[in-house]
Amino acid sequence: MRNIRLLLQYEGTRYQGWQRQQSTENTIQGRLEQLLGRMCGERVELHGSGRTDAGVHARGQVANFHTECTMATEEMRAYINRYLPEDIAVLEVSEAAPRFHSRLNARGKHYEYLVLNRDVPDVFYRRYALEVPGRLDVEAMRRAAVYLLGEHDFKSFTSAKKGKKSTVRRIDEIRITREGSLLRFSFKGSGFLHHMVRILMGTLLEVGAGEREPDSMTDLLLSGDRAQAGALVPAKGLTLVEVFF
Amino acid sequence: MRNIRLLLQYEGTRYQGWQRQQSTENTIQGRLEQLLGRMCGERVELHGSGRTDAGVHARGQVANFHTECTMATEEMRAYINRYLPEDIAVLEVSEAAPRFHSRLNARGKHYEYLVLNRDVPDVFYRRYALEVPGRLDVEAMRRAAVYLLGEHDFKSFTSAKKGKKSTVRRIDEIRITREGSLLRFSFKGSGFLHHMVRILMGTLLEVGAGEREPDSMTDLLLSGDRAQAGALVPAKGLTLVEVFF
Repeated sequence: MRNIRLLLQYEGTRYQGWQRQQSTENTIQGRLEQLLGRMCGERVELHGSGRTDAGVHARGQVANFHTECTMATEEMRAYINRYLPEDIAVLEVSEAAPRFHSRLNARGKHYEYLVLNRDVPDVFYRRYALEVPGRLDVEAMRRAAVYLLGEHDFKSFTSAKKGKKSTVRRIDEIRITREGSLLRFSFKGSGFLHHMVRILMGTLLEVGAGEREPDSMTDLLLSGDRAQAGALVPAKGLTLVEVFF
Repeated sequence: MRNIRLLLQYEGTRYQGWQRQQSTENTIQGRLEQLLGRMCGERVELHGSGRTDAGVHARGQVANFHTECTMATEEMRAYINRYLPEDIAVLEVSEAAPRFHSRLNARGKHYEYLVLNRDVPDVFYRRYALEVPGRLDVEAMRRAAVYLLGEHDFKSFTSAKKGKKSTVRRIDEIRITREGSLLRFSFKGSGFLHHMVRILMGTLLEVGAGEREPDSMTDLLLSGDRAQAGALVPAKGLTLVEVFF
């Protein structure tokens, strides 16, 4: 039994997220499993490093599947890219160790969120960046970000329902850079809860707009109360850049 | 009579180029004239700095129109962006001198052509870059480009039918830069003939692939023979970046 690892890219705009749902829905996992099944002549179950929500993009999603199929990895890559819709692409196909699992072995992730900070649209970023007009105080957002670094209970920053699962995560880096009117927010960490990056973003943007103090982050983390954090920002600005193993 | 100048951006993918044709066709000029006519309550004729072909993009197209309408320019910008389709945007609206004309006063243009030089697709560049797999010799393309600089008769590099109009143009700069697998070709000059940048690109890419010598450019220019130049590359890689006045 071979274990095949895929490095994937997709524009999430048209999709209802990564996770396969009913067969009638248009998901990245569903599309890929259907194609891999056809390629291998057997039912294929694809394990992604994590689900991305509807509208979220990926430049470096990792997934793996087991197969009896004997096709060479180079041939697989050509086959998959030939038949995939043009908004999904496979960058690499490789043999993985028998026990490699994209989700269970992932040790960290890198996400990016783009904000277009100007009062006119940019047609080239309309699918990839959130438009935020008005002044944004980058220094204040950077000061707020420092409070979020390290290991915390991020219960205030997730839409996940209360359950037994731990909401403790570690954020290693939040970098905010400005290139003209484009603000790039880069998040690296051990893992991110459901909606976590987008709620962190909504909160940081409120700091940037002067509606929230940078040093209020500590109380917000301690509260464990989703209602006290910022809004959930739209999915289109979010991209999964890399999965660390 | 006011003379209003627009700075425009568009993704050309969905359009049959700049120039208004029959009313049934989807053109940038047609879309804009319709909207401006509705805004001003009068028939509007929009003068672009030049036509862009079907599929060509623009980050800095300039156009102007005369109107009796009294709306403030800021209000116009908001109105136009509210009603334009999301792949066209107006970046600036300003009052121009009475005799300003976008095409007649244009003294130069800056175009960019993107090439994705790798053997796997990139979903984020599928509308903006031409995929060229295999090795491309950037140094050879740069050497070839030097022969094209300055004032020449570019008859070999246009699809325009023979006529009385001059095919002499001046190219001031051709810059080729590599960012990972993305090659950015930047052309600045006094003006470009129909299809000129795309035929120059087809010719340079043949040099890059080793199918043509850099120093063959001189003979090619002198020949005045379109058949001896390279292929017309697809429109999707081309963007009008700026118009100089």
